[in-house]
Amino acid sequence: MVDKNRRWLLAQRPSGIVGPEHFELVVDAVPSIADGEFLVRNRWLSCDPAQRTYMEFDSYIPAVQIGELMVGASVGEVVESKHPDFQVGDVVSGAFGWQEYAVSDGSPFGGLIPPVTVPDGVDAPTALSLFGITGLTAYIGLIDVARVKAGDTVVVSGALGAVGSVVCQIAKLKGCRVVGIAGGPRKCDLLRAELGVNEAIDYKNDDVDARLGETCPDGIDVFFDNVGGEILDAALAHIAVGARIALCGSVSGYSESQGRSPITNAFNLTLQRATMTGFLVFDHLDRAPEATADLATWAAQGQIKNQIDVVEGLENAPTALRRLFTGENVGKQLVRLAD
Amino acid sequence: MVDKNRRWLLAQRPSGIVGPEHFELVVDAVPSIADGEFLVRNRWLSCDPAQRTYMEFDSYIPAVQIGELMVGASVGEVVESKHPDFQVGDVVSGAFGWQEYAVSDGSPFGGLIPPVTVPDGVDAPTALSLFGITGLTAYIGLIDVARVKAGDTVVVSGALGAVGSVVCQIAKLKGCRVVGIAGGPRKCDLLRAELGVNEAIDYKNDDVDARLGETCPDGIDVFFDNVGGEILDAALAHIAVGARIALCGSVSGYSESQGRSPITNAFNLTLQRATMTGFLVFDHLDRAPEATADLATWAAQGQIKNQIDVVEGLENAPTALRRLFTGENVGKQLVRLAD
Repeated sequence: MVDKNRRWLLAQRPSGIVGPEHFELVVDAVPSIADGEFLVRNRWLSCDPAQRTYMEFDSYIPAVQIGELMVGASVGEVVESKHPDFQVGDVVSGAFGWQEYAVSDGSPFGGLIPPVTVPDGVDAPTALSLFGITGLTAYIGLIDVARVKAGDTVVVSGALGAVGSVVCQIAKLKGCRVVGIAGGPRKCDLLRAELGVNEAIDYKNDDVDARLGETCPDGIDVFFDNVGGEILDAALAHIAVGARIALCGSVSGYSESQGRSPITNAFNLTLQRATMTGFLVFDHLDRAPEATADLATWAAQGQIKNQIDVVEGLENAPTALRRLFTGENVGKQLVRLAD
Repeated sequence: MVDKNRRWLLAQRPSGIVGPEHFELVVDAVPSIADGEFLVRNRWLSCDPAQRTYMEFDSYIPAVQIGELMVGASVGEVVESKHPDFQVGDVVSGAFGWQEYAVSDGSPFGGLIPPVTVPDGVDAPTALSLFGITGLTAYIGLIDVARVKAGDTVVVSGALGAVGSVVCQIAKLKGCRVVGIAGGPRKCDLLRAELGVNEAIDYKNDDVDARLGETCPDGIDVFFDNVGGEILDAALAHIAVGARIALCGSVSGYSESQGRSPITNAFNLTLQRATMTGFLVFDHLDRAPEATADLATWAAQGQIKNQIDVVEGLENAPTALRRLFTGENVGKQLVRLAD
């Protein structure tokens, strides 16, 4: 066991695209634990767009303060324990932050969810993506918020991102026609080949408005939005009567210091008697058992694949996070820590 | 009985504020009726913001064509009948259009709702406002769409309009704190004195954003929007967690040929897990019996007043309609036809 703990602290609040310049890597001693606590050796970090907001302002959790540990979800191994529910050798998932070693008393850290033991047979990447908050977000947003049904035309933005890739696959297995929006020909090829979408729109090279018109001639029944801004506005121009829009995130705007791209087609919500709902997965944790069971069944049946994108090394965590905002990641962005 | 029928036809599609220049008054013979039809002498015309959209584009009803009769709801008297369900002397409400005499076979006209007999004891202005589509719109939007509950902070735009004035009063009797937005000090005085709102915001003279912050320190739980545009955007900046926004109309934008004022605060829907829903009262006509019964009870108890604004004479119908878009009307805008 090494005797040092490398930790990423927030150095400055970002404006524009987040990157290494907003963090400071410090080396501390490995912390000791008290009664009722356990020590986790982090193995995998989860990179999530919401982390960009945690760095900037108070939301459903308080903003990370300058000089504080960067928050984030991770999976690690219990290496020492004075806690009755967590044993040495347990693999645990929790909000242990961007550090090699974390002390936990089992309570939520940073306002996020409390640590849980990862079941046998579930690998860490799957625990952090398909069976974690990512999969639950896709499930809740599409099934509970957007009330998807067979025959719907479903459009997904950020379709090859962590959540989007799961949404596309659930929509397909629910009997929907799926149109995915992603950046670049390679991603569009992957959308068709790996996720089986009916149509792919390349927002970097296509006229999104025109392509939505072509690919959704009867209008959009469900729009699952991960990006906001211009793409949300284009989708609003093509909604069908009774459309449901699930607002999961707005990654296009997180880096815009000049404010977000405005929405000009909001009146279509009135004309089409449509609904647009923002949701936060943490409000729906009571749905996790059913969601995880369904996702596990679909995965076992080969109806849904776990898309992951791995960056190696804690030292590259800021670079990995940046990938979410430059469109480099394909599927869930993870950081694997060195042994 | 006179032997002429004056009728307003659509002369040109409006851009900008609607007015007399968009209509042509023609004089035809009073039509004769066939078996299964009845003849209505119109007495009161209803002016509704949606009529502006009917003049311009297809929506839930086809656009009025150039040279066609202007559509609209009205109340009249049956003066001749070969229809089993309508007798001479009956007072009927229906979409009889902007004319002195209308022939009906009892079916919906212009895609709107079919004619119904006005119950004894209900006067025509009330049949067209509180107990008509206006009252039902307020009821459905506030109770079904926005799911209002006691203790909510409810903000209403167009608060002294036909629908808005009913919304303010229902929200008050449901135990809400009500903030009304209207144009000018006189309207704000009326909001407080006549409708009993807790706070009134004068969008013509106040800083709406700042005043919403002052009057809704814990955020807006329900926003009932009749105007869209800048006021909708300001409200979005102040929504509470779990807010419900009911989009009833967007009167601020109906006259804008350059497009609507953009929305910059849509991301707040995500941050606040809020929902924004457009609705159309005609989708909810099954709720009319319960709504009308409740509205009648509240009216009888003096908890809700019918606000009307009357212009005299069919010849002034275009001018009356224009008042909706210049903010001149107080409550439901009606046109009373000469005897």
